[in-house]
Amino acid sequence: MAELGISDREIAALVRPVRVRPDVEPAEVFARATWTGIAEPGDRAAGLLVTALGARRALAAVIGHWPVERIIAEVDPAARAGRAALGREMHDALARWRPRVNSAAAVRALQSAARIGCRLVVPGDDEWPGGVDDLGVHAPLALWWRGQPESMPAMGRSVALVGARAATGYGEHVAMEASAGLVDRGFAIVSGAAYGIDGMAHRAALASNGVTVAFLAGGLDRFYPSGHDALLGSIVDTGAVLSELPCGAAPTRWRFLQRNRLIATASQATVVLEAGHRSGSLNTAGHAAAAGRPLGAVPGPVTSPASAGCHRLLRDYDARCVTNAAEMAELLEPGGAATAPGLRLGGGEASPEQVRVLDALSTRSARDVNDVAVRTGMSPNAVIAVLGVLAVDGLAREDERGWLRRV
Amino acid sequence: MAELGISDREIAALVRPVRVRPDVEPAEVFARATWTGIAEPGDRAAGLLVTALGARRALAAVIGHWPVERIIAEVDPAARAGRAALGREMHDALARWRPRVNSAAAVRALQSAARIGCRLVVPGDDEWPGGVDDLGVHAPLALWWRGQPESMPAMGRSVALVGARAATGYGEHVAMEASAGLVDRGFAIVSGAAYGIDGMAHRAALASNGVTVAFLAGGLDRFYPSGHDALLGSIVDTGAVLSELPCGAAPTRWRFLQRNRLIATASQATVVLEAGHRSGSLNTAGHAAAAGRPLGAVPGPVTSPASAGCHRLLRDYDARCVTNAAEMAELLEPGGAATAPGLRLGGGEASPEQVRVLDALSTRSARDVNDVAVRTGMSPNAVIAVLGVLAVDGLAREDERGWLRRV
Repeated sequence: MAELGISDREIAALVRPVRVRPDVEPAEVFARATWTGIAEPGDRAAGLLVTALGARRALAAVIGHWPVERIIAEVDPAARAGRAALGREMHDALARWRPRVNSAAAVRALQSAARIGCRLVVPGDDEWPGGVDDLGVHAPLALWWRGQPESMPAMGRSVALVGARAATGYGEHVAMEASAGLVDRGFAIVSGAAYGIDGMAHRAALASNGVTVAFLAGGLDRFYPSGHDALLGSIVDTGAVLSELPCGAAPTRWRFLQRNRLIATASQATVVLEAGHRSGSLNTAGHAAAAGRPLGAVPGPVTSPASAGCHRLLRDYDARCVTNAAEMAELLEPGGAATAPGLRLGGGEASPEQVRVLDALSTRSARDVNDVAVRTGMSPNAVIAVLGVLAVDGLAREDERGWLRRV
Repeated sequence: MAELGISDREIAALVRPVRVRPDVEPAEVFARATWTGIAEPGDRAAGLLVTALGARRALAAVIGHWPVERIIAEVDPAARAGRAALGREMHDALARWRPRVNSAAAVRALQSAARIGCRLVVPGDDEWPGGVDDLGVHAPLALWWRGQPESMPAMGRSVALVGARAATGYGEHVAMEASAGLVDRGFAIVSGAAYGIDGMAHRAALASNGVTVAFLAGGLDRFYPSGHDALLGSIVDTGAVLSELPCGAAPTRWRFLQRNRLIATASQATVVLEAGHRSGSLNTAGHAAAAGRPLGAVPGPVTSPASAGCHRLLRDYDARCVTNAAEMAELLEPGGAATAPGLRLGGGEASPEQVRVLDALSTRSARDVNDVAVRTGMSPNAVIAVLGVLAVDGLAREDERGWLRRV
């Protein structure tokens, strides 16, 4: 990586401690690590460039001041329509990126990561959460993570439980039940480690000895919120904490919003447990829906502002109403054991005629068939047929005076 | 009506006190009154016969022991497919009806009705609730009613509010707010006068000086439930209480289920406010959906069994989630004033770039454009453009040291 003034040997030394496996060449990993400090999360131009050139050559293009024409010739060799727009996009992107290209920052981020046991996963690794690739050009270029490598594949069968920071006791109770119930069914729990619903979802998963994964909006050297330091430490011990920002990066509102797209796509379904009318959880829900992931919302009292966002999702965004862990699991496995039985529009198990005949019988006064026929408005023959069935079922009986209801 | 052994003059005298207007000939009205005591609610064969022959000739066919062949020749003169099935249906129906043909009972029902100010409305009357005609061959043949004639057309702009007898304080509160809010918007409230949600919906409508209409499952000479005697009396004073059963008929389970189809179709939309997992309100909801009426369900805590039925309607039956009177009104008038604004998936009113730049500014430390460009990952030119907008909006300001956030 001569362009950055760092030797391949130095790069190999920097990369080694943050990698689980050495399959990808160190210079590519180093370049991806560097990109996480250059492009803001979700940067489309960075996604296009890195996909087309690889992280290393893409970085060389920025550092080497390649002309825009050369870049778009590589990104779009077929010279399709929209080339002019692509040219403008790359021109603007280069102007964004150049002030941030800083080899010292990249080296510092890797050194900080190594110090705290923070590692880097890149596309193609076994530990890479494949779901985020559905973000296409907006997918993360690499993910920093702290935790247990074996927890990463668990995201392949996971549900995101998200919700308001200002949760109510009701919301936290439901989050706890949902998280524990999903863990019991073999799902990992993905969330954002915020106060309120997120925290409760993580805690209940830990208490149930489940795998739980938190996505943060800043570098993993300083956990946010700091009040969840101990919780995040516990997640690191058994699951994983991830971020696409390098050590040293502060969480910003933009990064929170982009972090939400990772929660929504790294998991297979998203459930919003409580959310105010304009809660950030609706942003996560929007990302899940955009990525074609099943979206569930837990209803609550209409008198509770903390459920207003969930009701908006049910009303206006086709979220599925989910009321317990079984129904949440069903978002992923329709027709599973939790499938609701058909709604009986009649009165319970009995047929309409049986209802009518039972209505017309008394437990005390015996009635003859003609009397029952008049009371039910059914023909005597039909009454006899139904009485036979009811007798077999133990619901009616005949004595010498006539027919009686047993119950 | 020689067949019944009653003279036309006697019939006219019996019918006069129960009619608001004399447009339909007395013998036809008398026959419809008689039919309400012969056929159980929703009897398809009765609907077919009365539609084809008129109530009077249909009655004559039953009394005169017309052969089934003659009856089906009149019901289905085009001799379409299914004639054999129709023959069997009519054969069975005649066997049902004959034991109930009883002129004395019809006369008694009319006399009882006249005594208590109960009247009869038939299809074609101005007071007939046209919505029930959507039931086709299952439509009522006539409706007994007590109340104010001017309240009957109000059903043309009405919402059915139904729910569990075993309502919670939450459910009753929401029912009260919904009913009062719908009355304020000019809707009549239709319900079933049961304990719990129904009763609260009626009471709140009365308290708001609105029109409310109750459908009962038995004769109007004895109100059911008797604990709602006073409530039903108040509804009679300002609105209407209706039933398709004649005076003297007891409510049965079958009649409750069939009564629900009238609530669902006499109104323009049905809202279920609270309902257990197998509540009878789900039956009303099923009738509303079958008739193509908009169906709303009010969510509640997932921990409340009294809301389980509402959540089933949201999950499995495409009911619309409604949380207040405005949203209930919107079931009937989509795109009305209550239409929800588009969900903002971003962070409030600001554009993504504005969010990023605001994040990068401080209220205390002034920062120059290049600094902000690095912090945001945007190009300096883009930062300058966004800062200009933020300055105009009063969100950022520039002093001699650089840029600052104002709020």
